[in-house]
Amino acid sequence: PKDIGDADFANYFCTYGYLYHQKDMLEDQNRMTAYSDAVRLNPDSFRGKVVLDVGTGSGVLAMWAAQAGAKKVYAVEATHMAVQARKIVAANGLSDVVEVIQGSMEEVELPEKVDVIISEWMGYFLLRESMFDSVLCARDKWMKPGGAMFPSHAKMYLSAIKSNKSGQKYQELQESLNVWEDFVRNTHENYGIDLSCMNGEYEDEQKEHYLNTAAWVDIHPSQVMAKPFTLASFDLNTCSMDDIKVLRDVDFKLRLFDGLAGPSGETRVGAFAGWFDVTFAGSKENPCENPVELTTAPDANGATHWGQQAFYMFPEVYASDGHFISGKFDMVRRKENQRLYSVRMNWTQSDTDAGPPNESIGTRGIVWQIE
Amino acid sequence: PKDIGDADFANYFCTYGYLYHQKDMLEDQNRMTAYSDAVRLNPDSFRGKVVLDVGTGSGVLAMWAAQAGAKKVYAVEATHMAVQARKIVAANGLSDVVEVIQGSMEEVELPEKVDVIISEWMGYFLLRESMFDSVLCARDKWMKPGGAMFPSHAKMYLSAIKSNKSGQKYQELQESLNVWEDFVRNTHENYGIDLSCMNGEYEDEQKEHYLNTAAWVDIHPSQVMAKPFTLASFDLNTCSMDDIKVLRDVDFKLRLFDGLAGPSGETRVGAFAGWFDVTFAGSKENPCENPVELTTAPDANGATHWGQQAFYMFPEVYASDGHFISGKFDMVRRKENQRLYSVRMNWTQSDTDAGPPNESIGTRGIVWQIE
Ligand SMILES: Nc1ncnc2c1ncn2[C@@H]1O[C@H](CSCC[C@H](N)C(=O)O)[C@@H](O)[C@H]1O
Ligand SMILES: Nc1ncnc2c1ncn2[C@@H]1O[C@H](CSCC[C@H](N)C(=O)O)[C@@H](O)[C@H]1O
Repeated sequence: PKDIGDADFANYFCTYGYLYHQKDMLEDQNRMTAYSDAVRLNPDSFRGKVVLDVGTGSGVLAMWAAQAGAKKVYAVEATHMAVQARKIVAANGLSDVVEVIQGSMEEVELPEKVDVIISEWMGYFLLRESMFDSVLCARDKWMKPGGAMFPSHAKMYLSAIKSNKSGQKYQELQESLNVWEDFVRNTHENYGIDLSCMNGEYEDEQKEHYLNTAAWVDIHPSQVMAKPFTLASFDLNTCSMDDIKVLRDVDFKLRLFDGLAGPSGETRVGAFAGWFDVTFAGSKENPCENPVELTTAPDANGATHWGQQAFYMFPEVYASDGHFISGKFDMVRRKENQRLYSVRMNWTQSDTDAGPPNESIGTRGIVWQIE
Repeated sequence: PKDIGDADFANYFCTYGYLYHQKDMLEDQNRMTAYSDAVRLNPDSFRGKVVLDVGTGSGVLAMWAAQAGAKKVYAVEATHMAVQARKIVAANGLSDVVEVIQGSMEEVELPEKVDVIISEWMGYFLLRESMFDSVLCARDKWMKPGGAMFPSHAKMYLSAIKSNKSGQKYQELQESLNVWEDFVRNTHENYGIDLSCMNGEYEDEQKEHYLNTAAWVDIHPSQVMAKPFTLASFDLNTCSMDDIKVLRDVDFKLRLFDGLAGPSGETRVGAFAGWFDVTFAGSKENPCENPVELTTAPDANGATHWGQQAFYMFPEVYASDGHFISGKFDMVRRKENQRLYSVRMNWTQSDTDAGPPNESIGTRGIVWQIE
């Protein structure tokens, strides 16, 4: 539709127009179970209510709300998937309750205000895709006082993990720089053009790719080396756009578990890792009888489609059981694309909780792009 | 820069801003040798001349023109790579001749008209990326009468090839449809939503992906089953925008080689394949002493980075030695993205050159997207 910016369509919305991609989400059992339980186990939140589904995709959440007895469900979807959703709603006999509206949430007009907003808006490490904005925008414009958000709460976590990938990535970077060196030599010899003045630029470009990019990972719980630290906690019923736009100067502290270190007395931390969970608890005025949680934490049975994000450390951290890694965490939107984020962490190590940072290690800092 | 459309930047220009991608092109030896020979072996075309390099990237063609004695070279580049090109030009001591201008060719202003336009604008199957437009636009706006285009001529070829991929792709499609069937059953059972009304849409989406998408291939010459047919031939000194915008109703005819059929008397054709070549011959007024050719035809030593495009047939064609496959070929720009193309072929088989089409096989037609 016209009201989506062209670049935003090319960069972001494009894939959501394919059933293939909607299917990926519909196959994520943790995701599906959580949302379906949130609706099914809390019928009072839906019976007789007016509901808005922000980004309905295939229409699944809207249809569950209708099946739970909603009086009316407005299902808003920006992409062409809206046309499919309308057919699916009809095939499931729910057209009298679910009204699919094609358009971007920021611009559509609804005929009335709503009691409930349901939406599956979470991206990698919660905030990627910045669809949270559209949900808050919908809330501020269309929610009746006392209405309930589904989900109602979201939290972001940080921990430290065991991983060999850090060394591997560093190796790959070295190899790619060796290839470049050969390439520069050949280009000079064969074609009379000297590209060596780009050595630094190429190294920067490759470092960005190999070292300064966070990775989707499916962590086994045994890799987790410290009790997860809560970086951020959002109450969707009350938080503001300013609360979610950037996370800045968040102080974090991780205490390495006991029993990690080998005979050397030291253990190796390969990366920070981040994930999130959301809770369906309703609002103060309309609390859920049966709150439901959806977590994307490391799980021995395998990750949700969100996985976790790994932020590899270069070099790796060597520390002993019970040592502390503490520092500051920032997460800001990328200039070129507001739906993508940069994470920065600056940290120090110390032997005890109140102890001074280890001077010989000093303060370290890395920026990672979330792709 | 501001003058590139946002979506066009996201879809197209984005990757050219990376040295990594420029390197891929600079490592293509056939490409490099052809352009460097075209300049090196035709010094009269460059000595004392004013040259324009359309889309200079790393600046390589502009620098060769300068090294060959050009008086002035304007090197236009839309992306941030212009900044790198400027540094490379300086490091090669050519800043007094080569002037890098950042901007899109359609919008930049040059201080004078030029004698020569050099450009490496070719995409997959020649036309993909539609950068040919920018080159003709530059010619019409900035070329002096009698000036020369480098390259000066381009041709597109079609043949028929042996390949097992057709059956394989068909198999993959069937598997993906089976997976969908299970998925629809599970979604109904577990979550009470019936998606079977999307079976047809999903099949269409997957067919588009598996059957109606052309593939990059590196064909061995022994796979080629017929003398390549010349689909189009462009004289860059004279052709118009209309000549390159679409290819429509091009009659083609392929005669299968002798000695292909096995004991059954029949041979199996798995796909059409397309490729191109360009020639550096100068213009009528300023012909090259030593014309040079750059071909992307099947090569036992491996393909250029353009490879060839394979258009798989479903079902495959069975025919005998010396039989003819003839039909019509169309290549048009995609509505959603004018830099991408759809190819359509409609064809019949016949036993002899002048013979009637084989009625029992009839006319067949397929559309393929070039990605
Ligand atoms: N601002 C906006 N307006 C309308 N739709 C949006 C939007 N931002 C994202 N979307 C849509 O929201 C969907 C998010 S994916 C979730 C789909 C579906 N609710 C499910 O749970 O399976 C995508 O289909 C995307 O196109
Ligand atoms: N309309 C336009 N204006 C300016 N630059 C363009 C353009 N269309 C494409 N380009 C640039 O043209 C380049 C084509 S790739 C070729 C790069 C270089 N001449 C070489 O031969 O190695 C890309 O860097 C792309 O960004």
